[in-house]
Amino acid sequence: MSPAPIVASDVRRSVDRALLDFLRDRRRSLPDVVPLLDEIERITAAGGKRLRPAFCVWGYRAGGGQGENGIARAAAALELLHTFAIIHDDVMDRSPLRRGKAATYRYFATTDGVEGDPDRFGTSAAILVGDLAMALADELWWSAPFDVHAMARGGRVYHQMRAEVIGGQYLDLLAAARRTATPEETRRISILKSGRYTVERPLLIGAALAGAPLAVKEALAAYGAPLGEAFQLRDDVLGAFGEPEVTGKDADSDLREGKQTLLVALAREVGSPAERQTLERLGRDDLSAEEADRVRDVLRSTGALDRVNARIRALLDQSRSALASPALPREAAAALGDLADHSTMRAL
Amino acid sequence: MSPAPIVASDVRRSVDRALLDFLRDRRRSLPDVVPLLDEIERITAAGGKRLRPAFCVWGYRAGGGQGENGIARAAAALELLHTFAIIHDDVMDRSPLRRGKAATYRYFATTDGVEGDPDRFGTSAAILVGDLAMALADELWWSAPFDVHAMARGGRVYHQMRAEVIGGQYLDLLAAARRTATPEETRRISILKSGRYTVERPLLIGAALAGAPLAVKEALAAYGAPLGEAFQLRDDVLGAFGEPEVTGKDADSDLREGKQTLLVALAREVGSPAERQTLERLGRDDLSAEEADRVRDVLRSTGALDRVNARIRALLDQSRSALASPALPREAAAALGDLADHSTMRAL
Repeated sequence: MSPAPIVASDVRRSVDRALLDFLRDRRRSLPDVVPLLDEIERITAAGGKRLRPAFCVWGYRAGGGQGENGIARAAAALELLHTFAIIHDDVMDRSPLRRGKAATYRYFATTDGVEGDPDRFGTSAAILVGDLAMALADELWWSAPFDVHAMARGGRVYHQMRAEVIGGQYLDLLAAARRTATPEETRRISILKSGRYTVERPLLIGAALAGAPLAVKEALAAYGAPLGEAFQLRDDVLGAFGEPEVTGKDADSDLREGKQTLLVALAREVGSPAERQTLERLGRDDLSAEEADRVRDVLRSTGALDRVNARIRALLDQSRSALASPALPREAAAALGDLADHSTMRAL
Repeated sequence: MSPAPIVASDVRRSVDRALLDFLRDRRRSLPDVVPLLDEIERITAAGGKRLRPAFCVWGYRAGGGQGENGIARAAAALELLHTFAIIHDDVMDRSPLRRGKAATYRYFATTDGVEGDPDRFGTSAAILVGDLAMALADELWWSAPFDVHAMARGGRVYHQMRAEVIGGQYLDLLAAARRTATPEETRRISILKSGRYTVERPLLIGAALAGAPLAVKEALAAYGAPLGEAFQLRDDVLGAFGEPEVTGKDADSDLREGKQTLLVALAREVGSPAERQTLERLGRDDLSAEEADRVRDVLRSTGALDRVNARIRALLDQSRSALASPALPREAAAALGDLADHSTMRAL
């Protein structure tokens, strides 16, 4: 029996329901952390595309998994894990906006009655909210109603994914702090931070829970790995060129942060001395709007933007062609094709 | 058959071996995070009493658990979780020393090649090292070789404990930021941050893994709850009065941090206007050594220090009398008596 069609909005609905039900239960069992639970819920409600849950659900269905509620719980754990990741990410990047609303560290800086340094309080509180989100993601994950063998298979990928995304963040941070990275290094960061974390691992977690055959897992990886890299490259382009209304982030924050993206690495590689000098301004807290515009000009004039956009197209083609695999059920392949469009049109 | 006697040093040896074996495996499977794994190992090797693992092992033995390697793995997960907690704690407290060595956020601030603000890089890296320690603690925990029912029982307490310690940290942070807390509020913080986290929950996790009968779990809770509170109060006294060589921390850092302890809350409650004014200096970054001495004088002159020391003694008596329970095997009761002395002589 083929599973019933599930569109993106259905995935969102069932995953959000599983997530909110879980948080509501925790409010009762953990009264001391209610302000932190409220914040996790505020960030969740502020937006996001639920991409990781959607990939997890469709990996599960592609692997022959049946039913909706069990996989929604596992997928909701991935979303809660992502909430942890973005809350800590915003602390590290000093990125004041998330999904168009105050980032957690900014939100807590306005807590009533705080004397001393409100920014420091906000940062500390955000570290704790992120910590709680990771701990609860884990609890939600292990509460998913699959048998012990399925959980062991899925758990291996889940553990690997968590360590990878943290490792990717570290490499990203180090490259930004050192203000340099080769194109190859930026690629490794993209793979760890986003390729695997956003697409490939969620797909494979779903497939592992379903007990998918090897051919399905291979097809999902062949689709997911390039799509994830394309997603990160699109995110990098948006970080440099996107409007705040589209990205939900502060304008120029990636440039001020000095993110070492493929875009920047390619521009540095081929840029003239004058162009490279302009790129030297990346990562300065006092980067002006005019300087940011000049950096964007260099990213264009060196051909870096065109090359990255061409690479995104090539990766998307590669990803899409993997969907022709006979191992993938037709309905899953169609849904994954839609998700590829959906995820790379705009990145949050 | 009664389990073989295990002294504290044996627990340390078997737990540290389980922890280091696990980290070594992760070096192979996660080459990208090796610098973070190195740091987790550095903090682990710098000291610590392995109290939480010891309570976990003895909770297991008190509950009739047999064998050494399985419980050592679960106990090592608690130590790794504690590594996460202290790394993030030091970021939040800006406490530069841990176990007499550089705290993680200070250690990473000296990373080669970092331009821009090294403190910010150090803080961000420490957030990630802590995140990885929590993620890996979890992986180690779930790899413990107990049956699915034992893991489900232990897992419930493990999840509860993690959320509680994060909640306790938040209340502690909020009280320090607001520069006030009632004695009752400081008590709640002590219970969450330390009573349960350091003693009661590790004991009950061990007992749950062993499938201990209710009478044993009740005796362990009756012993562990007051001991954990005594441990936190002793830590508070050491934070205000201890020598850096004893505490492994910077002198006066708790006072500069403005920690709202029972000691401070009692002194504020009964202090004269002049004494309360002296206490107002708590939590100021520019607190001088002379001002810290004056705060200590107030903690003495108001009788707060004597009252807290008396409470520590009363809690220890209460804890020790719970060891007379006939539900506890004699050998476990003896070991827990030693652990009570060991844990409250000095707090790390």
